[in-house]
Formats: sequence, C-alpha cells, structure tokens
Amino acid sequence: MAINLLITNDDGIYAEGIQLLSQVLFESGRYNLTVVAPDHERSAVGHAITMHRPLRVEQAHFLHNPALIGWAVNGTPSDCVKLAVEALLEEKPGLIISGINRGSNLGTDVLYSGTVSAAVEGVILGIPSVAVSLTGGGKSEDFISAAEFVRDFIPHLINEKLPAGTLLNINVPAGCSVKKEARITRLGTRRYRNSFDRRTDPRGLIYYWLAGELIEGEEEEDSDVQAVREGYISITPVHFNLTNDAIIPELKKMVARMGLGGR
Amino acid sequence: MAINLLITNDDGIYAEGIQLLSQVLFESGRYNLTVVAPDHERSAVGHAITMHRPLRVEQAHFLHNPALIGWAVNGTPSDCVKLAVEALLEEKPGLIISGINRGSNLGTDVLYSGTVSAAVEGVILGIPSVAVSLTGGGKSEDFISAAEFVRDFIPHLINEKLPAGTLLNINVPAGCSVKKEARITRLGTRRYRNSFDRRTDPRGLIYYWLAGELIEGEEEEDSDVQAVREGYISITPVHFNLTNDAIIPELKKMVARMGLGGR
Repeated sequence: MAINLLITNDDGIYAEGIQLLSQVLFESGRYNLTVVAPDHERSAVGHAITMHRPLRVEQAHFLHNPALIGWAVNGTPSDCVKLAVEALLEEKPGLIISGINRGSNLGTDVLYSGTVSAAVEGVILGIPSVAVSLTGGGKSEDFISAAEFVRDFIPHLINEKLPAGTLLNINVPAGCSVKKEARITRLGTRRYRNSFDRRTDPRGLIYYWLAGELIEGEEEEDSDVQAVREGYISITPVHFNLTNDAIIPELKKMVARMGLGGR
Repeated sequence: MAINLLITNDDGIYAEGIQLLSQVLFESGRYNLTVVAPDHERSAVGHAITMHRPLRVEQAHFLHNPALIGWAVNGTPSDCVKLAVEALLEEKPGLIISGINRGSNLGTDVLYSGTVSAAVEGVILGIPSVAVSLTGGGKSEDFISAAEFVRDFIPHLINEKLPAGTLLNINVPAGCSVKKEARITRLGTRRYRNSFDRRTDPRGLIYYWLAGELIEGEEEEDSDVQAVREGYISITPVHFNLTNDAIIPELKKMVARMGLGGR
C-alpha cells in the first residue's frame, strides 16, 4: 500500500524546491502525495501560528504536471501542517517532509526556521517528520539531486521508525551529487555580527534592516555546520525536551533561600 | 550601580502587563529600565524575525508615568530584543524580562510563544533572560502581584547567575497573592482537540478558524501545568540543546546500512 506523504515548506507552494521535490516523489510512483504549503514565502517565521484571522485554502496547479495537486494556505508552515492534518486530510499522513528549502537551516538558526517548524508541528501531532534544506545557491539540478536523496531515504525512515518527539533536520550541500555521503550530526552554532543596518529613508526617518554577517568560527567535528562545510549531507536528530533538568536542584535551593517554597 | 534591565513582551507595548511591570520596577528605584516592545499584539508568533521589510522604532509615552519611556517596534518580540541589544542600547542589558504576558505559557505551548521567544533571543545573545506570564483573566491586581514577585526575584537572579543558554519561564497564577509559593517545574504537555472550525463566509467561501479545546490530562507532579493548576508559581528552566543525542548511534547505523557513509 502506498504511503501517504504530506509535503510542505516555508518558501511558498510555487517555490522550485517544493515543486521539484513533489515531482521527483510523484515520478517514483511509490507515494500518495498531498502538498499543503503557504501561498507565498514565509521564511524566518519560526513556529508562528495564525490565531487572529481565518485561514483560506486554495487549490494550486502545477503547470508542469497537472496530475499533481497542491493546496495553498494563507498562513505559516506550522498552520499548513496543523490544517492539513486536522482539517484537510482524511487520514493522518505516514510522513511529513518540509522543503526543500532554498538555503541552509543549520545550528541555532533552526529556531527561526519555518521549514523546521513545520516538521516540529508534525512531530507534535505524532507524525514522523523531516525538514530538508539545500545550502548554497540552489540550482535546479541541486534541488533534483537533493530530492532524489529524499526519495531514496524515505523507505528507510518508514522502516526504521524514529523515536516519538524527534524530527530529522537534513541539509544537503549544493553540488553534492559528487560526494553524496551523509553524516549524522549535532546542531552547531551560528553567530552573526553587525546585525542591523541603520538607514535614513527619503523623508529623513530612521529605519533598520536586519543584516548580519555570519561569523565563521571553530566548529565541533560532529556539527551540522562542519559536515555541510566539508560537502557532506548532514542529518541531525532534533527533539523538543526543552527543560534543562540539570539545573533544577540548584534552582530549588535558590527558591528555598528566598523563602518561596521551591519544592 | 543600578542594573540595566530590558523589558519586552508580545502583547504590545501598551498592554497592561508590560506597563504595570515597568511601573513596579520603576518605583523600586533599583534599575535602569529600557522598554522595547512590539507596537501591537504579536501573540503566537513563535520565534519569528523580520527579514524582508525594515523595522521602525517610535517612542512610546506612558501617560501614567512620563518619566518612563519606551520604544515601540513594528516587529516581533524577537526583533525587539535583537534590535534593542544590537542597535538601540549603548551597552548590553544585565537582564531581559519578557512579559507580563496575559495568559499562561506552559508546556509544549512555549514553542509558539512570542513571550518565551523574546527570552530565547536574549539567551542566544548571551544575556540572562526570563519570560513571565499570568494565567487566568488578568486583573490589574494580579498583574501587580506578579510584577512584585518579579521585582523581588530579580536580585536573586543577578546574584545566582543562570547557566548560559538557559532561560527561566515563569507562570504566575491569577489570585496567587494568597499563596505566593513557587515550584521549580518541568515543561508539561498541552494537547488540543478539534483544532479548526470550518465555516462558510457570506459569499459562500470556506474558511478555517484555529480553535481547539485544551485536553485536560494527567500531568506529572513536577510539571508546570500541574503547579499552576494547584495555585503555585511555576519556574521552569528552559534550554535549547535541541539535538537528540540519544538516537545518534542508531541513526549512524541506519545511514551506514544505506551505503551513505554515516560517520
């Protein structure tokens, strides 16, 4: 029985990355595809959800393949996954793939990433989920090469069963068809300097552009940043156990010292 | 020497929670306050940042206290913290307080929370940060009571030094002045059912409202959800080590079986 795949992204439903991924998976003939994605680019929205206005869903046609049907939502990537799973789809998908994003989602940057957040939403809903990003410029052949990697990776994902609450964050370096090797990695660090450009508009008013230059620092050998830098596909297991258990005993003492209980 | 505090929120700079918090801290006379917050409500924006349009900063006047000056930004809570620290402030604040949010930010819901994300941004920038939310309806006296808790908690925070990369997520139950005791907690679970209302607009078109009723389930004794339910202030240490280290060995084997390397 073909597996139900839900495909989404944050670059918008008409972006090359999601279209080529959908096409490659469609051609494999192995999956029932549903594409539900934002109607326009929603990069850097993090885990935003839309609560204060209604969501609309419109059918999106892919000119290169009329048999492939998608749904465009006027919301964020997280909205798309929530809406697809809880309102649009007849049954829960077996797997969610978010991507292929134009540009990497590495290290601490995953916190800001709409691509990764869609996969987080999937995991929260109890569905195995994968985020896929393409580093570098993003030529069509690079997207296709990354899509083929995903196509061949999916059967393994289905067989192996990821632990609940964990998504895989995959970054594929552009031009990686030469060296299509994967490394299992940890999230590295991404730091920026000079994050804002201060400018004056034509009417003399100040405004700020988020800019920021990446600081290329030393990286742990097993980090996603380092793997991609060396031309490998990075696969990082990401979870959301956000409690820092290690400092709980110390905090309890502190609150007790404050005379506030602190059980 | 007075400590520099940066105050922000996601309900917007004119919300009662941030105004009363600022007022209580101002009256204590112990801190140099800078208020930088969104110009209107930005709930549920998660860790969104604004990349594709410029940010504007306008001075906000608080009628009840002309000595208290704030800055309203046309961006998200994360934008406010980034902009304040990297462009507006002369020096790094000693502490960032995000809140007091109207409504709780508990368990898995913190992923969606603009209030918590502002504190995350602070931690990423290397600044001790705290998110504060008020559960329940949010009467003025409840906000004031929560603000007084924060005021008395700050000196301890400054003395104790939180470990880098960890924020405190504080939830204060409404009416808690009766039993102002704190518990150190872990993030609980928050699940919702029937998340979307499907409706038809006056022109016959379908739209969806995110709704969703909270499923009140069994909770671990040490969860934030449970503590607040029992009328205690919950204090949860939250970090962002998102790598799921535990499954790395298994994933390496899987990738090796696929013939893809997998170091």
